Amino acid sequence: MMKNIPYRFYLTEEQMPKAWYNLRSAMKDKPDPMLNPATLKPVTADDLRPVFCDELVRQELDDSTDYFPIPQPILDLYRVYRPSPLIRAYNLEKALGTPAKIYYKFEGNNTSGSHKLNSAIAQAYYAKAQGLTTLTTETGAGQWGTALAEACASFGLDLTVYMVKGSYNQKPYRKDVMHTFGAEVIASPSDTTNAGRAILAGDPDTSGSLGCAISEAVEKAVTSENCRYVLGSVLNQVLLHQSIIGLECYEAFQQIGDYPDLIIGCAGGGSNLGGLIAPFMRDKLQNKADPRVIAVEPASCPSLTRGRYAYDFCDTGRITPMAKMYTLGCGFIPAPNHAGGLRYHGMSPVLSKLYHDGYIEARSYKQTEVFDAAVQFARIETILPAPESSHAIRAAIDEALRCKETGEAKTILFGLTGTGYFDMAAYTLYYDGKMTDRVPTDAELEAAFAKLPDIGA
Amino acid sequence: MMKNIPYRFYLTEEQMPKAWYNLRSAMKDKPDPMLNPATLKPVTADDLRPVFCDELVRQELDDSTDYFPIPQPILDLYRVYRPSPLIRAYNLEKALGTPAKIYYKFEGNNTSGSHKLNSAIAQAYYAKAQGLTTLTTETGAGQWGTALAEACASFGLDLTVYMVKGSYNQKPYRKDVMHTFGAEVIASPSDTTNAGRAILAGDPDTSGSLGCAISEAVEKAVTSENCRYVLGSVLNQVLLHQSIIGLECYEAFQQIGDYPDLIIGCAGGGSNLGGLIAPFMRDKLQNKADPRVIAVEPASCPSLTRGRYAYDFCDTGRITPMAKMYTLGCGFIPAPNHAGGLRYHGMSPVLSKLYHDGYIEARSYKQTEVFDAAVQFARIETILPAPESSHAIRAAIDEALRCKETGEAKTILFGLTGTGYFDMAAYTLYYDGKMTDRVPTDAELEAAFAKLPDIGA
Repeated sequence: MMKNIPYRFYLTEEQMPKAWYNLRSAMKDKPDPMLNPATLKPVTADDLRPVFCDELVRQELDDSTDYFPIPQPILDLYRVYRPSPLIRAYNLEKALGTPAKIYYKFEGNNTSGSHKLNSAIAQAYYAKAQGLTTLTTETGAGQWGTALAEACASFGLDLTVYMVKGSYNQKPYRKDVMHTFGAEVIASPSDTTNAGRAILAGDPDTSGSLGCAISEAVEKAVTSENCRYVLGSVLNQVLLHQSIIGLECYEAFQQIGDYPDLIIGCAGGGSNLGGLIAPFMRDKLQNKADPRVIAVEPASCPSLTRGRYAYDFCDTGRITPMAKMYTLGCGFIPAPNHAGGLRYHGMSPVLSKLYHDGYIEARSYKQTEVFDAAVQFARIETILPAPESSHAIRAAIDEALRCKETGEAKTILFGLTGTGYFDMAAYTLYYDGKMTDRVPTDAELEAAFAKLPDIGA
Repeated sequence: MMKNIPYRFYLTEEQMPKAWYNLRSAMKDKPDPMLNPATLKPVTADDLRPVFCDELVRQELDDSTDYFPIPQPILDLYRVYRPSPLIRAYNLEKALGTPAKIYYKFEGNNTSGSHKLNSAIAQAYYAKAQGLTTLTTETGAGQWGTALAEACASFGLDLTVYMVKGSYNQKPYRKDVMHTFGAEVIASPSDTTNAGRAILAGDPDTSGSLGCAISEAVEKAVTSENCRYVLGSVLNQVLLHQSIIGLECYEAFQQIGDYPDLIIGCAGGGSNLGGLIAPFMRDKLQNKADPRVIAVEPASCPSLTRGRYAYDFCDTGRITPMAKMYTLGCGFIPAPNHAGGLRYHGMSPVLSKLYHDGYIEARSYKQTEVFDAAVQFARIETILPAPESSHAIRAAIDEALRCKETGEAKTILFGLTGTGYFDMAAYTLYYDGKMTDRVPTDAELEAAFAKLPDIGA
């Protein structure tokens, strides 16, 4: 029974999830384990403890526990900015003339400007609980770095952020926001690490990549006292924390009396999409429902649509464990692309496995197509979307227009991960007709694949 | 009976106000009428119609009707981004160690980044309903211009924005946001109007002011076809529209079972504060409750705390009607100040009258004091506040600390009007210790007062 659905639906505090959902527990065919690059054997908790704090190691490796209770201090911070609204895009539906019902989960209403804060708070909390004093991380577009800076300010931790140099230069104010929360921000590659110096030696003018920045942040963490590294995407633990997005959606749909036929999310490392789909994919894996899921990525960094499903390093410097994932090769550095948060060579092993097994579809869009959708959306829905999020908007609009052709009143849910306030330089390029749509050639991809680690399998 | 109060309280769509409240109706002593500068007689509807559209003229002049029903198309757009949350700042209370209960009404969760959208939608709607095709306006910090650009995009109106040159240069991305919504943005003073050319002739290097920009926008409107001028603050009609803020608060406090002892808002032209206090001031005027109200302004532009209560022009070019208000003189141009939205020489006639009659207190803060509070607040509440809003934060923190001294558990409500994403240049100055606290000297103010219009009274 469908109720009268408001434009913005908020759960009450009582209705908010009290535990994260571990999607791996519902997968009969689990993602392949990460490998220790020295032994080529599955990583152990002992392997990971120098890098991650203990509870996060447990969450990373546990693929059978279904729910992880959310500690009270994390719930206390979640409620400062959550629940995020589930928005019924009545105006967009009307503008498109589609019979489809379009919903989006908007995660941009906090200063980090994105969903990243959900995992940042969790990771900072566990670090503090373990008695650590310092964290390191990388950031692309800057949303993750900002989120972690916020979380570290809340728990009284020091933070060093390695920010992809291209974004650092394109978004000068991002570092000032991180500064507001007391973080140190270093453009990557930098001369502060061996990994950074090696990359600079090879290409002094590189604009960097998430892979490079990860290498530097990990090196810094393992060579510092009381310090650990944290990552804003890709990892199982991050998808676990981000399940809060999907769980809130799931509860909201129950309250509203609807259920998505189609779930769409942008995918860089996979944290947003993995979190958004978690309870719905459980239903799908358990044959209780059959929503279509579409991962949307930039044509400039098409790990799912053009990558290989193979073991690869998570970083450019080849110092992390290897993960089985769709990858463009850890040496791949995408063309400058303003969706900085999607410039990662690989994809979450969980999503990679689901894609490989046919539970998820994927598609890619060129930048200008994405900005077309961003501007259309902003004018109609009065939210200025981040370029990353706009990939999902593009796909949602296309699917809604398809419904218009077929006359199907499908229920579409997409993740609006964040706002574009710090992406105005990219919007300006778009307005001025100077935005490029460079995509890698097959030869470039083949060259990157040739450097995939040989694990003798 | 006090209920368990969530961090963020949202009204349901059913609980949202369906009419604006006209605070003037509760004032026994009405604000003095605006005067036609040519006749020195109260302005008539006929005087105002060349400048404002007809329904807004009616709202501007009506000081007896208590409620104005909100037209459905406006309600339809309000619900895209409203209700705004009433936030109980538990974390801030804890950090301050105060027995006070601190609430804030957060209006920053829309792309304009502020409460300005509430009136922009109303003004654009009435213009469209009257068959106009084009609007002009001025903007200081850029929030009003962005809000009106959003509203004009929704109703299909053209828009020209005169943006104070200082802000235009400090905030290059602001104009790109307005561009997203299809607006034309011109740095003011400009050579596109007689008023602008005259000001430039006198001071070619001026960084401009809201007063200058108003002159240009009004001139452009009255010399163009099917075009009217709209203003984001000061006017009675704007306070009327902004009453949605206070009405939502009032209803939320009823739901929660609390009532503010103290209401605090930043005051530039007065739109936010006037809207926030509307129903509470009604209670005060009708002796049903007695909340203290504090208007907070920048020491660099202290219209209430150091201005004169006198008839003055609303613009620098002296082409608007004259209003009885607290003013620094329409020729006063404040020192560059990063709270661009508070750089106005006058104050809403409604608030001026209430202040004059002792219903409102006022205080001013220097810029660095305000940014101290902004950064403290951001770290604790995870919202990056606009410099304008941070004036209210400063006062709220000071009042909460006073409660700590006295042990009083007062209920404090303040208006958090917007976000500071486009104010990072100012934050950077603050971090670098380069922010100045220039305030006008008495001699400077006397010189400005000397140029107040002589109305022979």
